[in-house]
Amino acid sequence: MMSGRRVGLLDVDLHGPSVPTMLGLEGRRLAGDEDGMLPVQIGGLNVMSVGFLLESADSPVVWRGPLKMGAIRQFIEEVNWGDLDLLVIDVPPGTGDEPLSICQLISDLDGAVIVTTPQKVAAVDVRKSISFCKELGVRVLGVVENMSGFACPKCGEVTQILREGGGRKMAEEMHVPFVGSIPIDPMIAVSGDEGKAFVEMKEGSPAAQAFRDIVAAIITQ
Amino acid sequence: MMSGRRVGLLDVDLHGPSVPTMLGLEGRRLAGDEDGMLPVQIGGLNVMSVGFLLESADSPVVWRGPLKMGAIRQFIEEVNWGDLDLLVIDVPPGTGDEPLSICQLISDLDGAVIVTTPQKVAAVDVRKSISFCKELGVRVLGVVENMSGFACPKCGEVTQILREGGGRKMAEEMHVPFVGSIPIDPMIAVSGDEGKAFVEMKEGSPAAQAFRDIVAAIITQ
Repeated sequence: MMSGRRVGLLDVDLHGPSVPTMLGLEGRRLAGDEDGMLPVQIGGLNVMSVGFLLESADSPVVWRGPLKMGAIRQFIEEVNWGDLDLLVIDVPPGTGDEPLSICQLISDLDGAVIVTTPQKVAAVDVRKSISFCKELGVRVLGVVENMSGFACPKCGEVTQILREGGGRKMAEEMHVPFVGSIPIDPMIAVSGDEGKAFVEMKEGSPAAQAFRDIVAAIITQ
Repeated sequence: MMSGRRVGLLDVDLHGPSVPTMLGLEGRRLAGDEDGMLPVQIGGLNVMSVGFLLESADSPVVWRGPLKMGAIRQFIEEVNWGDLDLLVIDVPPGTGDEPLSICQLISDLDGAVIVTTPQKVAAVDVRKSISFCKELGVRVLGVVENMSGFACPKCGEVTQILREGGGRKMAEEMHVPFVGSIPIDPMIAVSGDEGKAFVEMKEGSPAAQAFRDIVAAIITQ
């Protein structure tokens, strides 16, 4: 999806680092050299996650705010990312220490991609994240609506499991761009659990096409 | 579901307080008297959420750890909860400031109910929460698996949208009790968005029955 670009992926979901599982990198540890920690490499992608530092997969990260800020600073300043075209940062939901640290530590952020689901309960939380970006002067590159409708594999009936269109409506009300909806596909959970790329596992599916269109809409901005 | 019991509900998801929306209490503000802040009352339930303190529904709570600990302390010590049989505390995912503050501020916690979804990516995070409870000496009352299978309303075909049985398997591996699975029902999102109780809106449905069985399994411990 990022063909030809040198990309880094930084997982700052310190309490729930899912990136190692979703990329099939569980159990991998970081190497270091005199220039700092080296990210884990997979298919040309440079990856950093607190998951690579934990003793076991079940170890919790019981850190309060200031410790989190320190860890995130290290991930940015002391990891030898090499020469990147893009650094993608995966941030947990909310407006707490993790996104705040990123916004304060990286002065030239290109912007934020906001992911929601269609129902109002999710949109209510995400509206706060958009206000947070506006307060901190971070451009919102786009809102993505995930888990948007499910087509029964037997009869084709589409059910709006988590309601319909809440992401688009919320983006319009908050005056930020809407960049696409990803339909529910059971293979998304399977591919994430197995550490494989969904867009390659189910190439040509509506959800894979949605992923591609969304990346294209964000990258060309 | 809690018939006859005096129940309080404390929402300590400071960055994403969904309780006001899900109970139809959006826009409600707190009253106070000489004994402290008074929780919002609905149908005999005493409710407290940071959502009742925000200027607008879109205002983010941009607080780092120490401020969060202070706010949670106030919710516990300075809210006039009255005479309760049960205080239910809704905590955001992860092992950060919010659950840590609760465990440190309330010395006689009865225990924690852990909610996951069936796929491994979710179970990986939740295993950390269970380790966190064990480290802090908090008993795990049970694991609930949410979003567990979807029956197409047209043809009845059941699809495991987020895989199958990961919650039960994880509970067994972590040696904590499994207390039930809640199937996907599109009315759960509708009822939450509309601020109505799902178990009343769709009484008799498999998901409503699952909710009741799970509450019974937890309460009788």
